[in-house]
Amino acid sequence: MRGIAATVLSIGLVCAPARAADLAKVESYRAQHEAAIIGQLDELVRLKSVAASPEGLAATAARLANLLKARGFDVSLLHAEKGPPVVLGSYKSPGAKHTAMFYAHYDGQPVTPSQWSSDPFSPLMRSGMLGDGLQTIDWKKTKPPFNPEWRFFGRGAADDKSSIVAFLTAWDALKATGGKPSVNIKVLWEGEEESGSPHLEQVLKNHSDLMRADLWLIGDGPVHQSRSPTLYFGARGSLSLEATIYGPLRALHDGHYGNWAPNPAAMAAELIAQLRDSEGRILVPGFGDDVRPLTDAERAAIARLPKVEGSLSREFGIGRSEGKEGLTASTMRPALNIRGLRSGQVGSEAANAIPVDASVSIDFRLVPDQTPPKVRTKTEAFLKAKGWTLVTEAPDLATRLAHPRIIHLKWGGGYPALRSDMTTPAAKAVIAAAGAAAGKPVTILPMMGASVPIYLFDDRFKVPVIGLPITNHDNNQHAANENLRLRNLWDAVGLYAAMMSNLSW
Amino acid sequence: MRGIAATVLSIGLVCAPARAADLAKVESYRAQHEAAIIGQLDELVRLKSVAASPEGLAATAARLANLLKARGFDVSLLHAEKGPPVVLGSYKSPGAKHTAMFYAHYDGQPVTPSQWSSDPFSPLMRSGMLGDGLQTIDWKKTKPPFNPEWRFFGRGAADDKSSIVAFLTAWDALKATGGKPSVNIKVLWEGEEESGSPHLEQVLKNHSDLMRADLWLIGDGPVHQSRSPTLYFGARGSLSLEATIYGPLRALHDGHYGNWAPNPAAMAAELIAQLRDSEGRILVPGFGDDVRPLTDAERAAIARLPKVEGSLSREFGIGRSEGKEGLTASTMRPALNIRGLRSGQVGSEAANAIPVDASVSIDFRLVPDQTPPKVRTKTEAFLKAKGWTLVTEAPDLATRLAHPRIIHLKWGGGYPALRSDMTTPAAKAVIAAAGAAAGKPVTILPMMGASVPIYLFDDRFKVPVIGLPITNHDNNQHAANENLRLRNLWDAVGLYAAMMSNLSW
Repeated sequence: MRGIAATVLSIGLVCAPARAADLAKVESYRAQHEAAIIGQLDELVRLKSVAASPEGLAATAARLANLLKARGFDVSLLHAEKGPPVVLGSYKSPGAKHTAMFYAHYDGQPVTPSQWSSDPFSPLMRSGMLGDGLQTIDWKKTKPPFNPEWRFFGRGAADDKSSIVAFLTAWDALKATGGKPSVNIKVLWEGEEESGSPHLEQVLKNHSDLMRADLWLIGDGPVHQSRSPTLYFGARGSLSLEATIYGPLRALHDGHYGNWAPNPAAMAAELIAQLRDSEGRILVPGFGDDVRPLTDAERAAIARLPKVEGSLSREFGIGRSEGKEGLTASTMRPALNIRGLRSGQVGSEAANAIPVDASVSIDFRLVPDQTPPKVRTKTEAFLKAKGWTLVTEAPDLATRLAHPRIIHLKWGGGYPALRSDMTTPAAKAVIAAAGAAAGKPVTILPMMGASVPIYLFDDRFKVPVIGLPITNHDNNQHAANENLRLRNLWDAVGLYAAMMSNLSW
Repeated sequence: MRGIAATVLSIGLVCAPARAADLAKVESYRAQHEAAIIGQLDELVRLKSVAASPEGLAATAARLANLLKARGFDVSLLHAEKGPPVVLGSYKSPGAKHTAMFYAHYDGQPVTPSQWSSDPFSPLMRSGMLGDGLQTIDWKKTKPPFNPEWRFFGRGAADDKSSIVAFLTAWDALKATGGKPSVNIKVLWEGEEESGSPHLEQVLKNHSDLMRADLWLIGDGPVHQSRSPTLYFGARGSLSLEATIYGPLRALHDGHYGNWAPNPAAMAAELIAQLRDSEGRILVPGFGDDVRPLTDAERAAIARLPKVEGSLSREFGIGRSEGKEGLTASTMRPALNIRGLRSGQVGSEAANAIPVDASVSIDFRLVPDQTPPKVRTKTEAFLKAKGWTLVTEAPDLATRLAHPRIIHLKWGGGYPALRSDMTTPAAKAVIAAAGAAAGKPVTILPMMGASVPIYLFDDRFKVPVIGLPITNHDNNQHAANENLRLRNLWDAVGLYAAMMSNLSW
């Protein structure tokens, strides 16, 4: 609501904003509608919107379009050459001078149902994280208020359908309690984020008129591990690489040929040791040349973060960290993560053989101003300098015989990072509104460690892009048993209502 | 036959022995019975004698006992506390002053049927190695002589049932052609070699009287890659190790936690780089302290070996070797082979996550006078010095938090190597008889790179132990599509006949 005197926080100022009066009404509405809110999330999770199910993606997009239309939005389903539709909604608020675009994605990561404790698309409420003493809750038969530590399990329950439900609920709450949007509101909900958003740029380009906004708010990602409401002002970029190293044409008895025929598993270990050290430092020369230094404001924001390393170490069961600079500072650097290794067999299936090949799956995280093409060029030049022969298809016999160390590289698409200005008027308005919703200063992250393709919005529209995460950090995002902690969804309803009604700059 | 003047070769002397006259009769017998010989091998391969099938092992032992009894042998089935029976046969030759023990194993490696081109236990004749232009042969309907380049495919067809069939056929040929054994003959056929012979020592101990012999001949392993008839005078020892390295308790989003939470796949690469270099040199301090130098005779034997590195490189499709000393010389060193790596996921299944653990499967090959306990002790001391905390069960939370680098080690049983004297009278007699069968000097290997537990026989009985390999080197031993080249079996019949009838010292 425009009538609320939101305290515009300058970065570094940590006075506690007052809880906005109208947001109290929103909270009251939320408390009276807990079962209906979970019911909406339950319905959306049951729509199987994963890349393996194009019809599930299409059905979800159609359903979301209807949900927006029912709320008075103009809605389009936008298509690129391929891929699921982008849901675009628009609502013009009388008298508003700015437009806020709310981004989220309705697709979820692929699932491996055998790893789940329950069907990923038949969501379940449980009394907490999976573990000892956990109870399944028949929430439909339970009288609210629900315990805010309960968790709702299902693919997409957190990432990202929770953001969509928070948006819809905040809208309903404002309408029901007499609130009015202070900005024009647009919605962009895409269905390919978990596949790297390969067609989003084309949609943005083809429909840039429809996309015009003064601010993009990104409803994706978890809040800080301290469970404090959080905003982020950027995200790392991403670039994946699948490497295959070749040994002998057939598995060789390692008694007869070990120490003589080259072992691709040992070569994979050499490759990794060439690329990164045990503290996660990347050893490719010049890899950091394009890294833009943090600003003073960004450093200060990191220094103000609650310390979570101790509690996270206990949560994750780890006895050391890579590097000594702390969690968030470490995610300001580029990273080279080993996602997987495969060679030969282990355990009871291990045969006394030299494997035929070894696969290494790598995930680069980029920071401003690195670009995927430059990272690729530097990495390839380094590997060549280390004696590797790079191939892009399986080598034939002549190639194998001509080169001592052959590596097949298959690069993923990838995209660059974004770290946006935390001091623009719009940024200050968002920080203030979020603080008004939380009743306290929110946690400010200059850049999220994970990747979302928000550089696209910055690149094309040159307006502030700010992350509005809502899920618990321990939501098992991208893994089995994805879950949403109810307290996070309740907080999110207030946060979204504040972004609709309290933004003023 | 004693009447044959076998040329006793001193090591280093390479004059060509004459083809023994009675062995020509054996060859003629073999040529007239090719279908029956393959029929015997076919019958034995169909008996499913693998560790997963105790009843198949028992049935094979019973069948082998009957085959020996039918040939006039005294036969016992010997049992340890556990495990399949050891088939022991004995035949006393009138006037013989020495006894030769013929060892082989009737069990085969485990099979992964999906990797085979045909059922491992329904053997097939094919026109050669698997590849372009290969034909399946209906050998039962084909009139011999069979093409000696044909191959007979099935689990155990080479390793080791071919040795058993060569023994039985040589015996039959001698009997049919009026030949007489020049030595007393004993047979020990065990059923647990592919599992590391865990109960063989107990059987040898409990029945050492029955085992008494002046010479052990080991019917296992391939001939030299030059396809020349071969004898070996030792075998490397073996010791396996399964290592598991621990990362976070659950897979963590590598965007949020990469560069901070330790990556077990990267730690596995460090482990391997700590243990061995790219030339296969083992980096554990003092690892080579117990390595007994080669004798001059052993060095000379290696120097005389046909050069096969070039043709093998082409066969295996490899553009380099580990080390520069050549294939056989490299197998005189201890080895540390990486059999397998597993961590996270690769390729289309790769998730952007820090894996929870990494597994490394290692196979040590030992040389005289190394022992498994010493290797284990040195390796563990080195890993501790490198900062690893060694555990033997999965670490609990307190252990995880207390130690930065935790590694779970699971050692296999293992056994030491043997390199026996190539200059004893019995050794000279075996070399001479093998040369008589081949019609040329045979290839002499001081030690086979692969492992067979022949140290047991040397250790207990203190008599010469000599390897009598027969299979083609490219028999896919231990892998899918195991096969025996017919020429190798035909050569083996003559070799076994020579060991029965031409040994004299």
